[in-house]
Amino acid sequence: MKNVFSKYIDSLQASVISSLEQVDGLGKFKKDSWSRVEGGGGLTMVLENGNVFEKGGVNVSKVHGKLPESMSTMLNTKDSDFYACGISIVLHPKNPMVPTFHANLRYFELYNNGTLKDRWFGGGLDLTPYYIFENDVIHFHANCKSSCDKYDLSFYNNYKKKCDEYFWNSHRNEARGVGGLFFDYCRENNEMSVDKWFSFIKDMGQCILNSYIPIVEKRKNETFNELNVNWQQIRRGRYVEFNLLHDKGTLFGLKTKGRIESILISMPPKVKWAYDFNPAKGSNEEKLIKILESPKNWV
Amino acid sequence: MKNVFSKYIDSLQASVISSLEQVDGLGKFKKDSWSRVEGGGGLTMVLENGNVFEKGGVNVSKVHGKLPESMSTMLNTKDSDFYACGISIVLHPKNPMVPTFHANLRYFELYNNGTLKDRWFGGGLDLTPYYIFENDVIHFHANCKSSCDKYDLSFYNNYKKKCDEYFWNSHRNEARGVGGLFFDYCRENNEMSVDKWFSFIKDMGQCILNSYIPIVEKRKNETFNELNVNWQQIRRGRYVEFNLLHDKGTLFGLKTKGRIESILISMPPKVKWAYDFNPAKGSNEEKLIKILESPKNWV
Repeated sequence: MKNVFSKYIDSLQASVISSLEQVDGLGKFKKDSWSRVEGGGGLTMVLENGNVFEKGGVNVSKVHGKLPESMSTMLNTKDSDFYACGISIVLHPKNPMVPTFHANLRYFELYNNGTLKDRWFGGGLDLTPYYIFENDVIHFHANCKSSCDKYDLSFYNNYKKKCDEYFWNSHRNEARGVGGLFFDYCRENNEMSVDKWFSFIKDMGQCILNSYIPIVEKRKNETFNELNVNWQQIRRGRYVEFNLLHDKGTLFGLKTKGRIESILISMPPKVKWAYDFNPAKGSNEEKLIKILESPKNWV
Repeated sequence: MKNVFSKYIDSLQASVISSLEQVDGLGKFKKDSWSRVEGGGGLTMVLENGNVFEKGGVNVSKVHGKLPESMSTMLNTKDSDFYACGISIVLHPKNPMVPTFHANLRYFELYNNGTLKDRWFGGGLDLTPYYIFENDVIHFHANCKSSCDKYDLSFYNNYKKKCDEYFWNSHRNEARGVGGLFFDYCRENNEMSVDKWFSFIKDMGQCILNSYIPIVEKRKNETFNELNVNWQQIRRGRYVEFNLLHDKGTLFGLKTKGRIESILISMPPKVKWAYDFNPAKGSNEEKLIKILESPKNWV
């Protein structure tokens, strides 16, 4: 599975990049490959100052070696080796009418004395709009739901709920965005074999393209003004706050001396913090805040 | 001491604001007073879009009540009440040739069953330049040193070292800025009575004005270009990273449900994250990085 998954994320990286470059029309992803002293490495692909995307990263990493102590504690195991690989995508569009997008798919293997002890999949995808176009959000969630429903009718509700819980900016009492899916520790069981989970993961990969790209196509030529950009940059501040204060992936990466630039590629390109900024009553900006304060069901 | 210190920080807030408004020439601080459900409150003073200062906050807070659990654990005490008051200053100048400045002075009292059990002072001040003017940094540190030397010849070295250790962006392996002073748990002892510590604190208050304002006056009319602003905004990203990832004060404030807007007033107004941005060899930007990588002695 390790090799199969590894090849799959390489091909997904290539097809996501090709779709994004096509949508952008101008920006091209630059390659930056890196290696990890303790074992493994990755390929970071980054686009900056495109036509549609102000900044975007599509990263693959494949790392292995002795399990770092902080992770041993978390997984309640000792003297283990690990193999982890995954793809991670963060896209910050220029136009405030186009939402920011994040997704990742990952696979983890744990060994004791060279014997495979445990393995699981994880990942998810979620949307962070600056302005709410309800049909776009419904389209996004409907895609997530139909991809899940092929496997288990409980998946969508479960993973949607986990996503809302995970991307919660607790210090602000609001969600980072309008959610999507979040799943972890997806292990083989009576209903789902490893192959079936892998098939689910591949459907999630397809869902990344199907759920987000049509929204970008639909909104990339919307008109916008300086006030919209101001709002976008203030909201991007909340994105930064979430990633640096709460995101377990980011904090774990930084603690375990991961590759800084690949981890912090998720940071938005231009961000503002204004003191106690509150949108006007009845404005579209306020509409967003109300939705973020109590995550709703979209499908 | 509680009342004396409380009055002192009110008057320091007023005189700092008056000095800053004079230097700025245009910007005026706006008042925002707040109260804390569990006891106490504060007065946040904020300036935005000034002539010299793009954003600045000069906050006083005076809070009391039952000691929050996270702090009980840290201080290894149970069922205690506390009184804490302090002044905190963060200034983000517009001109990249003017450094960002941070300072705070605080006083803490701990009670068990209404009896004073412990009390101490803390605080510090530090400078975060975007471009190095060595004489400015020397002026800043020389002021810090002479204020310390009046009390104990070991203070400057100790507190300078603590400042370098505290404002260390460990995930980047570089200092946030060029340091200054950091002191905490300053309790009465054979050499320093509570009154003498308070006198030291007042000298620190004077040092805030004497060390920073002359640098602002000297540099506020330096010419700068778009590349300088780009560099300033990228470096402000490191400031954000420090405050959200490492700053104990910020994290403690957020965990204990402090007033968000007063805590995050420290966030710079406009910030950029560019992928793997590295200054050109031999540039002034690179000179800064080299200094931040291994904090030096300035006086």
